[in-house]
Amino acid sequence: MKIDGRHYRTIFPAPDGEGICVIDQTRLPFAFETRTLGSEAEAAIAIRTMIVRGAPLIGATAAYGLALAMREDPSDRNLDGAQARLAATRPTAINLRWALDRVAGLLHPLNPTEREAAAFAEAARIADEDVASCRAIGEHGAALIAEIARRKPGPVNVLTHCNAGWLATVDWGTALAPIYVAHDAGLPVHVFVDETRPRNQGAALTAFELNAHGVPHTVIADNAGGHLMQHGRVDLCIVGSDRTTSTGDVCNKIGTYLKALAARDCGVPFYAALPFSTIDWTLTDGVAGIPIEERDAREVTHLTGRTDDGAFATVAVVSPGSPVANPAFDVTPARLVTGIITERGVAEATPEGLLGLYPERRKAA
Amino acid sequence: MKIDGRHYRTIFPAPDGEGICVIDQTRLPFAFETRTLGSEAEAAIAIRTMIVRGAPLIGATAAYGLALAMREDPSDRNLDGAQARLAATRPTAINLRWALDRVAGLLHPLNPTEREAAAFAEAARIADEDVASCRAIGEHGAALIAEIARRKPGPVNVLTHCNAGWLATVDWGTALAPIYVAHDAGLPVHVFVDETRPRNQGAALTAFELNAHGVPHTVIADNAGGHLMQHGRVDLCIVGSDRTTSTGDVCNKIGTYLKALAARDCGVPFYAALPFSTIDWTLTDGVAGIPIEERDAREVTHLTGRTDDGAFATVAVVSPGSPVANPAFDVTPARLVTGIITERGVAEATPEGLLGLYPERRKAA
Repeated sequence: MKIDGRHYRTIFPAPDGEGICVIDQTRLPFAFETRTLGSEAEAAIAIRTMIVRGAPLIGATAAYGLALAMREDPSDRNLDGAQARLAATRPTAINLRWALDRVAGLLHPLNPTEREAAAFAEAARIADEDVASCRAIGEHGAALIAEIARRKPGPVNVLTHCNAGWLATVDWGTALAPIYVAHDAGLPVHVFVDETRPRNQGAALTAFELNAHGVPHTVIADNAGGHLMQHGRVDLCIVGSDRTTSTGDVCNKIGTYLKALAARDCGVPFYAALPFSTIDWTLTDGVAGIPIEERDAREVTHLTGRTDDGAFATVAVVSPGSPVANPAFDVTPARLVTGIITERGVAEATPEGLLGLYPERRKAA
Repeated sequence: MKIDGRHYRTIFPAPDGEGICVIDQTRLPFAFETRTLGSEAEAAIAIRTMIVRGAPLIGATAAYGLALAMREDPSDRNLDGAQARLAATRPTAINLRWALDRVAGLLHPLNPTEREAAAFAEAARIADEDVASCRAIGEHGAALIAEIARRKPGPVNVLTHCNAGWLATVDWGTALAPIYVAHDAGLPVHVFVDETRPRNQGAALTAFELNAHGVPHTVIADNAGGHLMQHGRVDLCIVGSDRTTSTGDVCNKIGTYLKALAARDCGVPFYAALPFSTIDWTLTDGVAGIPIEERDAREVTHLTGRTDDGAFATVAVVSPGSPVANPAFDVTPARLVTGIITERGVAEATPEGLLGLYPERRKAA
């Protein structure tokens, strides 16, 4: 995506070849700064402190971290040690372990002298594959936007929740990829951005990346989407997914279900955009089967932002002494999902729909 | 309601008879302080700066403000002047003008020497009538809570949105009145409190008053209610209403509609609690007919709270340069409303239901 007219990925080799550059997402949206990760230890810190976040980006960063480790010491002992140390940075992220297993599995049979080059090449392939997958999601989703643009005058108004954008992946994003592809193709797109309490990834990250790329958008409180849909101001909802059942239930950031209900009530199409890796083929009932992470109360009780004099401050906004619950995700039942956009196309949110895109799963089932 | 075991109203004559005491709501939830309004000017400032807020409480404060004006100068000229000055403090609040008209109408025929005492007495009547009305709403609503308590073990879990509580009225509140009556009667009640972005009246005010009175409660992000209902953790929703159509459509704080949709989807009863004065008998279609106030973007982009060292700070939380929309209310169609609780009882959210409680309106129609 573009920042000030220049194309960026969220992770890329440093121009001098000495390290890996990432965008420091802890400084967004108030400052855009890149950091160079020059060692395995710096890669681990970047993941742990959320300088990088978003499952696909974490995976790519860990892969490059292993490559940096091989530059420092390509021995078997360091390969195993680095894999374990990097895996421990965000223990629940599935992409992290998947990427590390993939790179380490490739390196183990190699002579140590070959490992550095092979690891950097494999990390680059992981990043490139993510970009291609997200780009394909974008192409398929943009066709839905184009179809609406043909039917109505003015911009196509898309509502999204949380950040399933460029910043969560290596490029393009998942839910935002169709928007970028449509915008770049000259289609008139406008995005309603849910601020996405409690962590505000919509207001901070989605708004930042749409603004940087020049996509017209409007930030709203999470409470506002239903009202906008009631009044015909939303043509299409597109959200991401952290886990998708084989039946098309979508687990995404808390509050997604409420928007899907409003979309159904108001006749607005509701799509989830996701790579195949989020589909859990073992699950048929998302509400019953997907455990929902309960996160720290402080995410609800406190907010960090910038004061008028440019300093950062953290303030409490909840009445002291009141208990807080903070479920991080909810499940939108497939009956509320118009369709699922993946790198292979758009499917109905049904077992048959998903198997139609992934016929190889039919044999496995 | 009780604060530290002591009963308070939000407005009451000072013990020394020299003025009117109010709770400074701009200091909540971090400090509980009362202020004495000793003059008409101080009453006007209290309304304008939102030391007091909530339509019923604003009305009572204005009535007392007119009484304080009569103490200062009971002439016709000052009566008219004070009425105009107090009416200008919050020009859109209907209760404000209603209360001023009522007191001024009573005072005009009187001899100036009789006006001070008559005004204080009438202001006290307005406050007492609000308390009685809210208390009646509480009794009718508490019967719904008691019915659920008879059917299931453990606490009755009520979800509410925004602050339609004690702090918005003289005592008891509207949506919270059934909760206080049930709690005081020994029924096991637990309240899920939506934080209610963007102004956070749930996290700041509803949580404060429930905590002060000792009612078990849990603050949640507005996004979380649907997930809780999906998992059977909410038995009943009760919200307030700023305007109610003759057909039972309910206009309330933005986001109410989303919760009503989730309640319907999950089989959770959804009630609106309101005094007769919010019913607009001229309207039959709330979505089409009720204009929705668009408020300042800064309510979304900035939050004020307390830092860890006890100071207050205002921080920006939205990506700079992103446009913001901030509709303040939405309309929940009557088809999603299980019932309407008023001071006269509980009615279906239909024209017949409401006319059943207010048969005198049948003749007027």
